Amino acid sequence: MPKFGFIERQTKDFINIDPLQTGGKLSEEAKKALVEWGDGYSVCDFCTGRLEEIKTPPIYDFVHETLPEFLGCEVARITNGAREAKFAVMHALARPDAWVVLDGNAHYTSYVAAERAGLNVAEVPNTGHPGFRIEPDRYAEVIEETKKKGDVVLAVLTYPDGNYGNLPDAKRIAKICHEYDVPLLLNCAYAVGRMPVKMKEIGADFIVGSGHKSMASAGPIGVLGMREDYSSALLRKSAKYKKKEIEFLGCTARGVTIMTLIASFPHVVERVKQWDKEVEKARWFSAKMEELEIVQLGDKPHNHDLMFFESQKLYEISKKAKKGRYFLYKELKKRKIHGIKPGLTKHFKLSTYMVPKEQLEIVIRAFEEIIDRYS
Amino acid sequence: MPKFGFIERQTKDFINIDPLQTGGKLSEEAKKALVEWGDGYSVCDFCTGRLEEIKTPPIYDFVHETLPEFLGCEVARITNGAREAKFAVMHALARPDAWVVLDGNAHYTSYVAAERAGLNVAEVPNTGHPGFRIEPDRYAEVIEETKKKGDVVLAVLTYPDGNYGNLPDAKRIAKICHEYDVPLLLNCAYAVGRMPVKMKEIGADFIVGSGHKSMASAGPIGVLGMREDYSSALLRKSAKYKKKEIEFLGCTARGVTIMTLIASFPHVVERVKQWDKEVEKARWFSAKMEELEIVQLGDKPHNHDLMFFESQKLYEISKKAKKGRYFLYKELKKRKIHGIKPGLTKHFKLSTYMVPKEQLEIVIRAFEEIIDRYS
Repeated sequence: MPKFGFIERQTKDFINIDPLQTGGKLSEEAKKALVEWGDGYSVCDFCTGRLEEIKTPPIYDFVHETLPEFLGCEVARITNGAREAKFAVMHALARPDAWVVLDGNAHYTSYVAAERAGLNVAEVPNTGHPGFRIEPDRYAEVIEETKKKGDVVLAVLTYPDGNYGNLPDAKRIAKICHEYDVPLLLNCAYAVGRMPVKMKEIGADFIVGSGHKSMASAGPIGVLGMREDYSSALLRKSAKYKKKEIEFLGCTARGVTIMTLIASFPHVVERVKQWDKEVEKARWFSAKMEELEIVQLGDKPHNHDLMFFESQKLYEISKKAKKGRYFLYKELKKRKIHGIKPGLTKHFKLSTYMVPKEQLEIVIRAFEEIIDRYS
Repeated sequence: MPKFGFIERQTKDFINIDPLQTGGKLSEEAKKALVEWGDGYSVCDFCTGRLEEIKTPPIYDFVHETLPEFLGCEVARITNGAREAKFAVMHALARPDAWVVLDGNAHYTSYVAAERAGLNVAEVPNTGHPGFRIEPDRYAEVIEETKKKGDVVLAVLTYPDGNYGNLPDAKRIAKICHEYDVPLLLNCAYAVGRMPVKMKEIGADFIVGSGHKSMASAGPIGVLGMREDYSSALLRKSAKYKKKEIEFLGCTARGVTIMTLIASFPHVVERVKQWDKEVEKARWFSAKMEELEIVQLGDKPHNHDLMFFESQKLYEISKKAKKGRYFLYKELKKRKIHGIKPGLTKHFKLSTYMVPKEQLEIVIRAFEEIIDRYS
C-alpha cells in the first residue's frame, strides 16, 4: 500500500491565482482548529440531537445568531457545500414538471442540482462577448416565457459568476422575480466571505455561500440563508425522528469543516471590510495585463477579484510553441505560479484575491517574459 | 467576535468510548495530511473535471482500483458521508409511491434518507429484548407484505446496527431479497474500516461506509460501493455537463476529507486484520461489566466493539442521587472518561474499538467505584 498514506501537496509554495483556491486558504486560527478537531466526529462530543443545536463548541450561536446577521437573512443552516445548499432548496421547492430559471453564467452545479431535483431549466442568456453581462430585464422575458410551459418554482442568480466575476444588478433582478411570484436564490459562492453582501439588502429569498471557496475554511462546507417564509419547506422535520431536518439528512458538515469555518470567521469578517482594496488591486492587475494585450472581459471597470482574460497573442504562440498549448502552463509552473488550467492560452480566468501585490507583480512579469520569449 | 476563532476541544485528553468516535480517531498520517491539504479546494490543484478523475493526488487510483477491492464491489464512489450515500442510492432508485424495506435496527439517517427520496418505509422488526436481533426470514415476510402495497425498490440492512452492534446473517438476507428481486444495501458505517467486510462475499448490491466514523478520517466523508448493474442509475451524467454525475452533484468530498481518508488507508487496512483481537477485547469488557451486573444486550457472545448495556442498579441510583440521572455522566467526566451520553443510566452504548486494554480497565474500575460509592 505504498501509494497512499501521507501525500505531499506539490503546489504549496507556489503563488496561487486559482479562482477556486484564493478565498479558501486557511487562516492561522483555522489551521489550529484543523488539528484540534481533526478526529472524525469530534464536534459531536456534546451533541443533543442535531448539528445546529450543539452548544459546545458554540455551533448553535454561530448558526442561529452570527450567520443570519452576516448573511443578512432570517434563518441559516450549514450545508456540505454551495451545490448541496442549492440542491436542498431546489429539492424542497420542486414540483412535478416545474421549472427553475438560471442566469446564463450559472455554475455547472446549479444546472446539475436542478437535474437532480427533477426540475426543467430555462436560462437567461448573457449579452455575449465581451461583457457577458446578465441584464435584469431578460429575467422578466424568460420567466414570462417559461410560465407558459409550467410552474417556475425558483430563479437563481450567480453573484458573481465563476467565469467572468460579473456582478449583475441583483436588486433589480430580485424585484422582477417577485413581480412574477418567483423566489430568488443568490449563488454567492464567490461573494460570501470575500465581499459585503446581504440577502435582505438585495431582496432575495435565499443566499448560498461556500466555506472552502470563499470563507477560509477546509472543505467541503457551505452556508445557506433564507427568509423565514421558506423555513417550513426547507426545514421540514422527519415524521419519525422529530428533531431531524429531512433536507439536511439530520446533520450536514458534522466534522472538522464546521470548526475551521468558525475558526476563520473573525478573520473573514475583517477581510470583507477590506473589499474595496481588493477591487482596486484587481483593477490595477487588469490594467497591467491589458498593457500586454491580454484583454479582460466581463464587467469593466471590474468589481471583483475573479477575472477572465482573452489573449490572441498567447493563442498564436501556442500554435507554434514546442509544447503546444501547454507552453503557458509549463512556463508559469517553472516560475512557481499556479492556477491557470493546463492547455489554456486564448481564454483563462484567475483571481487576485488576497494575493499580495508583490506576488501579482511577479505574475505580470512572468506573462511579459513569456510573451517576449516566444514572440 | 471573541466567541469564534480557535476553540479548544474539551475532551481531547479523555479516554473516549463514544461509539461515534472510536473509529474516527485520525492516524498520524492523517494528521499530517490535514495540515498539508487543509486549504479549501486544495485537492483540485490538478482537476480534470471530476473528483474521482484526479490523478495528482492519486484519487483516481484510490476510487477506481483500491476502494473497489477493499469494499469487494465493482464500482466505488466517494460521498459526503454514509447518509449521503444512502440518499444517493434511494434517490436514484426511487419511483413514485415506491417502498424501501429497512431493518428495525436501522440508523435514523436511513429513515430520513428514505423520507427525503419520497419513499415509503416498511420495517423488519427486531426480536426485542434482550437480543434485538434481525432474523433473515422476517425480510421475506415484510417484503411480501409490502409488495402488495407497491414497488419495493430497495432493502437496507444495518451491518452492524448502531445501537446493539448486532451482525445479522447478511448473506441469507441478501439471498432472500434477491428472491424477491429487491436489491440490498448494506449500511456498514460501523463495519468498513473496522472489520473485514466485502460486499460480494455477502452478495449485496450496495455497500456504504463512513470515513469519519470508521476509517480514521476527518469528516464528513463516506464511501459507496455498488454492483456494475446499478452504475447506470447511480452514475447518470448531466445532459449538459457530460463529465458530471448528477447524483453526486459533480463532486462530493472535494477537500481535505478525501486526503485524510487516503492518508489513513494503509493504517485502516492493517487494523482490519486485527479485528479478532478487537472482538476478543470487547467480549472481555462485556464479561467484566456483567460482573458488575451491567448486562450487555444484543448478540451474545458479542461480535463487535459497539455494545449496548442495561443496568437496573445505575438506574436505581439515579432516582436518589443528588445530580439525578446526570450522576453517571458527571462521575465519568471527573475521571476523564468520555462517550456515554449525559443523563443515561439504565441503558447506554459504548465502544471499545482501538481503546487500549489499560484504558478499558480504568473504565471498568470507574463503574465499580461509582456503584460502590452510591450503593
